[in-house]
Amino acid sequence: MTPTEYLQTIRNHMYTQQIDAYIIPSSDPHQSEYLADYWKARAQFSGFTGSAGTLIITQNHAGLWTDSRYFLQAEEELKDGPITLHRQQIPHAPEHIDWLCTHLQQQSAEKKKRSKVGINGWLFSVGQRQFLQKKLATANIDLLTDIDLIDVAWPNRPALPQNPVFRLDLKYTGVTSSEKLAQIRAGMESLGANAYLVSTLDDIAWTLNLRGSDIHANPVFVSYLFIEKDSATLFIDTKKITLPLQKELVQEGIQLLAYDELPGFLARPYATTKVLLPISTTSWNAYKLIHPDQVVRGKNLIAELKAVKNETEVAQIKKAMQKDGVALTRLFRWMEQTLSQRAIPEAEIATQLASFRKAQGHYFGESFDAIVGYQGNGAIIHYRPEAGKCANVEQEGILLLDSGGQYLEGTTDITRTIALSPPSAEQKTAYTAVLKGHVELASIQFPAGTTGVQLDTLARMHLWNAGLNYGHGTGHGVGAFLNVHEGPQGFTANPKNSRASVPFQAGMLTSNEPGFYKTNAFGIRIENLILCQPAATAGFLRFETLSLFPIDIQLIDWEMITEAEKTWLNEYHARVLLELSPLLNEEEQAWLAEKCRAIQ
Amino acid sequence: MTPTEYLQTIRNHMYTQQIDAYIIPSSDPHQSEYLADYWKARAQFSGFTGSAGTLIITQNHAGLWTDSRYFLQAEEELKDGPITLHRQQIPHAPEHIDWLCTHLQQQSAEKKKRSKVGINGWLFSVGQRQFLQKKLATANIDLLTDIDLIDVAWPNRPALPQNPVFRLDLKYTGVTSSEKLAQIRAGMESLGANAYLVSTLDDIAWTLNLRGSDIHANPVFVSYLFIEKDSATLFIDTKKITLPLQKELVQEGIQLLAYDELPGFLARPYATTKVLLPISTTSWNAYKLIHPDQVVRGKNLIAELKAVKNETEVAQIKKAMQKDGVALTRLFRWMEQTLSQRAIPEAEIATQLASFRKAQGHYFGESFDAIVGYQGNGAIIHYRPEAGKCANVEQEGILLLDSGGQYLEGTTDITRTIALSPPSAEQKTAYTAVLKGHVELASIQFPAGTTGVQLDTLARMHLWNAGLNYGHGTGHGVGAFLNVHEGPQGFTANPKNSRASVPFQAGMLTSNEPGFYKTNAFGIRIENLILCQPAATAGFLRFETLSLFPIDIQLIDWEMITEAEKTWLNEYHARVLLELSPLLNEEEQAWLAEKCRAIQ
Repeated sequence: MTPTEYLQTIRNHMYTQQIDAYIIPSSDPHQSEYLADYWKARAQFSGFTGSAGTLIITQNHAGLWTDSRYFLQAEEELKDGPITLHRQQIPHAPEHIDWLCTHLQQQSAEKKKRSKVGINGWLFSVGQRQFLQKKLATANIDLLTDIDLIDVAWPNRPALPQNPVFRLDLKYTGVTSSEKLAQIRAGMESLGANAYLVSTLDDIAWTLNLRGSDIHANPVFVSYLFIEKDSATLFIDTKKITLPLQKELVQEGIQLLAYDELPGFLARPYATTKVLLPISTTSWNAYKLIHPDQVVRGKNLIAELKAVKNETEVAQIKKAMQKDGVALTRLFRWMEQTLSQRAIPEAEIATQLASFRKAQGHYFGESFDAIVGYQGNGAIIHYRPEAGKCANVEQEGILLLDSGGQYLEGTTDITRTIALSPPSAEQKTAYTAVLKGHVELASIQFPAGTTGVQLDTLARMHLWNAGLNYGHGTGHGVGAFLNVHEGPQGFTANPKNSRASVPFQAGMLTSNEPGFYKTNAFGIRIENLILCQPAATAGFLRFETLSLFPIDIQLIDWEMITEAEKTWLNEYHARVLLELSPLLNEEEQAWLAEKCRAIQ
Repeated sequence: MTPTEYLQTIRNHMYTQQIDAYIIPSSDPHQSEYLADYWKARAQFSGFTGSAGTLIITQNHAGLWTDSRYFLQAEEELKDGPITLHRQQIPHAPEHIDWLCTHLQQQSAEKKKRSKVGINGWLFSVGQRQFLQKKLATANIDLLTDIDLIDVAWPNRPALPQNPVFRLDLKYTGVTSSEKLAQIRAGMESLGANAYLVSTLDDIAWTLNLRGSDIHANPVFVSYLFIEKDSATLFIDTKKITLPLQKELVQEGIQLLAYDELPGFLARPYATTKVLLPISTTSWNAYKLIHPDQVVRGKNLIAELKAVKNETEVAQIKKAMQKDGVALTRLFRWMEQTLSQRAIPEAEIATQLASFRKAQGHYFGESFDAIVGYQGNGAIIHYRPEAGKCANVEQEGILLLDSGGQYLEGTTDITRTIALSPPSAEQKTAYTAVLKGHVELASIQFPAGTTGVQLDTLARMHLWNAGLNYGHGTGHGVGAFLNVHEGPQGFTANPKNSRASVPFQAGMLTSNEPGFYKTNAFGIRIENLILCQPAATAGFLRFETLSLFPIDIQLIDWEMITEAEKTWLNEYHARVLLELSPLLNEEEQAWLAEKCRAIQ
């Protein structure tokens, strides 16, 4: 079916149901970062395949809102179609809602009748629906949240994913699911709740020590978890779980119900229950099934527990880092050798890297789509090379490579920027300022209670003094063989971001990734994962860098580097060499030793 | 009257009015930092004279809550009296409210009747009352906000201050009152308000280009200002204003009404008005006189305008800095000479400094009570030496001196820490880390949009790396011949503090005052006022240091100092010498030249 046909079906239903506008977001009922095909309605109906965008349909207009990252792609994909591209000025800003208010207010005035906007409330979090409701109410527009026009308009809709779920062994998790549930129940009690609806897929996977492959790049499975004082219910397509594992779960007190039984379950009368519902990750339609008196609006307890890695997880994550370092060594060595003979398409580098990672064993795919950004492509923050369309890397200029793998042992995420020919002074200044910021954050010790917005500055200060900056956060939490982006902590320059005010704790794993981007010219980013640890001074914390791969020193302006920074670099490289060499052959060892050579 | 007599009167009235507990805070209806005597009821009734504390009276208990700064003083002042000292664990925390809830819940249960708490709602901001109300409601306790037991229990209550109000000339303000009102009205309009009740005394003084001396250290006058679209009303005791000035104000469209006419004025019917009320600075009792539909809860518009100093103000402030530098030169030189002959009580240093400041002309007193902290006293953050009781400064150890003056030209606030004998390695390490942080903040350039919580880190990072920290913010806004503490911006380590998320703007004047404190041993703080300015890089800002007095280099551990820091220090000292020398005699010039000598 074409966008025109989809629009026609939706408009017919809108007419029947007297809906003036219908909103199709890029989300699922679990507020996932990546979507299963089943939930890719916005892409399916509009033809625009970028990750961020909102489709709004009225009887006389169909508009797609996306941000500057996707302008070119959206222009291309929407060309000659029935849908108008609205270029968002600010990513994530509610510009489409403002448009809707203006557009419908005018229409209401003409028709002398209040307008109605429809959504499928399962695809909106409580917070999102609240925001939308408030905006529309101000414009005298009604919001109906039980309108599912996606299913009716999508005849050959893909099935919900049905990939197998498996247990992650205690040697990787360190803590049993029962122990985790006990911790969660203690947290629930302290919040005055005796039940907890968990919607977020990574939180469910972590709690139950289960993993799956329903979602691209994230080792999770589609489900809900409802935790009560003495029991828990997993809502999942039970075909995904082998009978022995089903039995194991039941023995642990985990009841299994079908995924689509959740609404009926929530709507049952259960008078004494107080249900914890994190408002940023719970669907509005799940929330409203529970009586307001029984709702405890609260934080995501599991996210806080999950963020602090235990000793077993840390030991395993360090193994994943070694595997990743070996794969990167092979990739960069192969690239160097190949480039002396021929150009390499960016996409081939991503494929080659994935195969080196796979060869390391216990590999479950990329932790996100690798960003291989040559020259100007490196300045496109979410760039993804496509085979046949991407640039050819040659022995010239700068290459930015940001990638990660999912291993049983852990999740990796690392960025290196390398010079393929002698860099310019401008590039050296920017690279060195980025490196100085990276080292500042990697080396600081700070008092317990310090938060992400305070630490973020350390990664930027040297860039600022050079008159430079970057438009993204400095770091995000990373899962233990789970999602590469997880909360609650992070390094952000925005004091109002939820990550800003989360104090760091020993055990938190976070990326350290300052950068600098010159549009159409080059991109620079240096990223390692860093583990928060107690520092030598009592009451202080510091970071231990876990990622293992040399940082390109060809791009350094040594005039800008202090003795302390040189020492950090030499010690880091000595450790990389020490930890990776035993896993490499002699030629590879020699190659790595050269990259890791000490600077006087 | 004694505390026992005051308590008796209050309890009699509580009994008559069936009030179970009465709360007397340390505040006035303007949320002032310092109080006129008229509002010092808590001090009067309890005998405890410290600046922070809350008195709660029930029929069988009278308790005073204060924080650790005041434990010794409160013990002393409450000794043998009828009032129990409750030691607050955390400053500003609502521990007294928790006590009240527990205490009254028990009593309600015994009497089988809801308890009632009374307050004078004029002394609580909308936000404070909301917080109190919520806490009490949870404990099933009623809050009555129209109970004034202060006036009835205080027979010889001091009068409201009646000091003269005067116009601050355009050569100091740079902008007329009418122009300021136009700016404010534009801001009101953008918030959907056509009226604005201004309760904060410094905001009123700034708007009308008037000054007074009703409040200690703050050149303000007791009043309210109600701004409407085409008029404004100043509620003030008109005896304070000369007839010519009254006429001038009326010509500018400022109507004058008596201070106590505000409630009647607010309660009049005025159907089409939407009144802007900043919830953190408006009294609950003023707020509730206005119909909820007519309230626009908003930010303090004037605070935002006032924070950005104009060119005239900046030029005048620079003159005030010169005056202050001259006074400090004379003070420290006098101290050096005197100490070679005799010890000097801390309080005498404060008095002597005030007289040197006064001799500079256009002087209106201290901008706050000078902190002269010798040795361990320097570690007491809000220490104030009292004649006859304070320590004697000798030629040994460390002295911290934090002081400021009010001049027609501007308000100053400066701290220096000096060694009176060779310092220990520990003292040098701490002092040098404080200095490095001070210089880091004074030298940074940062992108527009950067906030106080981001910049605060720069002042702490070197202390952190030495395993040290300090328990106060790094800086507060400073008025132009106004309050030494003003908002909205500031440097704070707490992302939830309101100052944390305020972006710096060119023209904002802020203190830069990192420190380190070792209890019972010594205190270190280095404070200058810094003015935000556009930086050389477009879109970036930086700070210009305005305070002028040498920083003691005897306390520096030169091993810890970088070349860039040495250059900053030498350039700063060269500027201090250049700007102050023309105002000094030859001996003073020689003394200052020695303190400002360049370090190789």
